[in-house]
Amino acid sequence: MTVELLSVGTELLLGNIVNTNAAYLAERCASLGLSCYHQSVVGDNEKRLEEAVRLALSRADIVILSGGLGPTKDDLTKEVTAKVFGKELREDAHTKERIEQYFRQMKSGKITENNWKQALVPEGAAVVDNHNGTAPGLIIEEGEKTAVLLPGPPNELKPMFEESVAPYLNSRQPEGIYSRMVKLCGIGESKAETMISDLMEKQTNPTIAPYAKTGEVHLRLTAKAGDEAEAEHLMGPVLEELYKRFGKFIYTENENVTLEDAVVDLLKKKGYTVTTAESCTGGRLAARIMNVPGASNVYNEGYITYSNDAKRKLLGVKKETLEEFGAVSRQTAQEMAEGAADAAGADAALSVTGLAGPDGGTKEKPVGLVYVGCFVNGHTRTEEFRFTGNRDKNRDYAVVRALTLLREELLCL
Amino acid sequence: MTVELLSVGTELLLGNIVNTNAAYLAERCASLGLSCYHQSVVGDNEKRLEEAVRLALSRADIVILSGGLGPTKDDLTKEVTAKVFGKELREDAHTKERIEQYFRQMKSGKITENNWKQALVPEGAAVVDNHNGTAPGLIIEEGEKTAVLLPGPPNELKPMFEESVAPYLNSRQPEGIYSRMVKLCGIGESKAETMISDLMEKQTNPTIAPYAKTGEVHLRLTAKAGDEAEAEHLMGPVLEELYKRFGKFIYTENENVTLEDAVVDLLKKKGYTVTTAESCTGGRLAARIMNVPGASNVYNEGYITYSNDAKRKLLGVKKETLEEFGAVSRQTAQEMAEGAADAAGADAALSVTGLAGPDGGTKEKPVGLVYVGCFVNGHTRTEEFRFTGNRDKNRDYAVVRALTLLREELLCL
Repeated sequence: MTVELLSVGTELLLGNIVNTNAAYLAERCASLGLSCYHQSVVGDNEKRLEEAVRLALSRADIVILSGGLGPTKDDLTKEVTAKVFGKELREDAHTKERIEQYFRQMKSGKITENNWKQALVPEGAAVVDNHNGTAPGLIIEEGEKTAVLLPGPPNELKPMFEESVAPYLNSRQPEGIYSRMVKLCGIGESKAETMISDLMEKQTNPTIAPYAKTGEVHLRLTAKAGDEAEAEHLMGPVLEELYKRFGKFIYTENENVTLEDAVVDLLKKKGYTVTTAESCTGGRLAARIMNVPGASNVYNEGYITYSNDAKRKLLGVKKETLEEFGAVSRQTAQEMAEGAADAAGADAALSVTGLAGPDGGTKEKPVGLVYVGCFVNGHTRTEEFRFTGNRDKNRDYAVVRALTLLREELLCL
Repeated sequence: MTVELLSVGTELLLGNIVNTNAAYLAERCASLGLSCYHQSVVGDNEKRLEEAVRLALSRADIVILSGGLGPTKDDLTKEVTAKVFGKELREDAHTKERIEQYFRQMKSGKITENNWKQALVPEGAAVVDNHNGTAPGLIIEEGEKTAVLLPGPPNELKPMFEESVAPYLNSRQPEGIYSRMVKLCGIGESKAETMISDLMEKQTNPTIAPYAKTGEVHLRLTAKAGDEAEAEHLMGPVLEELYKRFGKFIYTENENVTLEDAVVDLLKKKGYTVTTAESCTGGRLAARIMNVPGASNVYNEGYITYSNDAKRKLLGVKKETLEEFGAVSRQTAQEMAEGAADAAGADAALSVTGLAGPDGGTKEKPVGLVYVGCFVNGHTRTEEFRFTGNRDKNRDYAVVRALTLLREELLCL
């Protein structure tokens, strides 16, 4: 069964708001085993909206529309969809009563005339109650085609989808889709893809799709199966093959686990604490570790040492080291990591020093040159990178590389 | 002239990522005076992609495609668009050289075979250099129709759009569109909108469009004019009126200036240095300040003090303060700011301590409670906030509020 998402709203076309509804609905539909091949956005314009509804219904079994259910004149989604299905609008007593009740509860004064527009329902449509606003959702079925109409505000749309629409869609599904995300760090996208090009060529069920993230590669496995167990059975051999080929590059096969989650988890398992000493990343590495709820179990304090004085004072980097090799050097990265571990009394430490750009580069030390240091268990490993992005991207790459380095070192223990 | 956005990527259809590119491109196109009536998303599927490209070209003068330009087999945007335009793909020497150069700089081993796919260019297409990745952008013109192809990663797409595509689109406009972004901090969107509802109602040329950003409100002024001088003349009185109404809430009227830019600029003008002491934001505030190239002029060192011990050791927060009021308190925020300024020998200091969530909240101190401290010139001001977002959003809001507070204090000096 296929589904198509149609978001209605001029504010989306103008870029006033980001279409988070589409991402939410897409993810939920995928998890419900519905194939989605198109998403569209159209404004509050009758003619274009009607064309968009007709096109979507011609391509998919189920069209989920969001937005344009409000009380104002430019809210046309219900009217246009009813027209496409050839249905009259009739006042719905239940919905009218709910609107009155809503205004009583909100104590938001008198109901304006246009609010009654929201009590009009296409004949034969199922009404989906809205517990967080006045516009009800609607489900219109006609022959092979279904339209689901949801209000635009995410805090109305999401609860309505979870409570009513998801169970409805689930009840209509004959077969399930199951997916798994295998996440890799420390390997580039091209290289990863080359290493599994044979698997990708002969793939049918499950399929593998690679996604490049900053410094990471994610592989999505998707299987069509009757149930979870059958999906596991289908994905098992492919997963095994991926582990054979990528081994320790794989840091999780859980959709919701990030690289920093995996690293904090490893630290917790070893009972280690970690600290950070950052120059060019200026706090981004620490902030990334602190993305993990409960990071306080492994992280107590960290240092941002932008100036040479700070590197000396807070981390004990030697004056001679800075003079002889410079702040952006393997030697400084090493002393920063060791000094940070010492100052924080931490079991492990990551350091980053480099030239993020855009200025300050020389021929010997160009913009993008970054050294990462990792101290664990009495030993420090340093790595040199030459990134080619802008200031922002260079710092993001440095952060991912630092986390990757710590993960590798922890795995080697 | 009309434009249509077509985002390519199965990860969008599956809801793996939110389509922020579409919002960005929509906003920029609107600011360039292009009318956009449709946005679509399609996956990495040859047949459906071709249909989508043909449909978009039938509806709009210019189609901006994003995503699907990578080196892997499922990246098809260039191939399919070239086919629709009836163009052959030819190896582009300039692009090939740039890819080689990119890999040399990255030192990321040998270039795999599939990378050369990115050097193929449709005949007659203009190549747009990518300074942050290997996939170049492309502009294909044929008769009345134009396709602009951009890479999917936002940190590649955005600089490419600003540097090359925006000037190109502008040059194709028969009439000049001039826009100015007035950015406000320290005021909410509803309040800001209410304060200019009369201006918005009678607006014709220039128009005003408000955009809510995290903790900020941006007002885009757009004027249609024959030249820059005429645009200035049209926007002048409106700008004056905005300054009259919003005064010091306005931190810039330059599109490219961020809040951290404005704050660093103020610090430089005063000849002040600043430091940071962060608990729940864990480095995000420092990293935000360090976004500014040349931040080293005003920032030498900073502290991440997650544990109470770290707050005491690095910042000299008193044991009694932590015991009596807790780590998340106005008093602790104050001592953190003062201690940080002292330890770093800085003229100013910002501190953040709070409960970002998701756990750890109590009835008295719920998740979202954050205290920000700002020490300047011998005086410390603290503020209490109660944010209602998730861990990530709460920390972002705290960072913006801290920068806003420092800006206000510096303006009062």
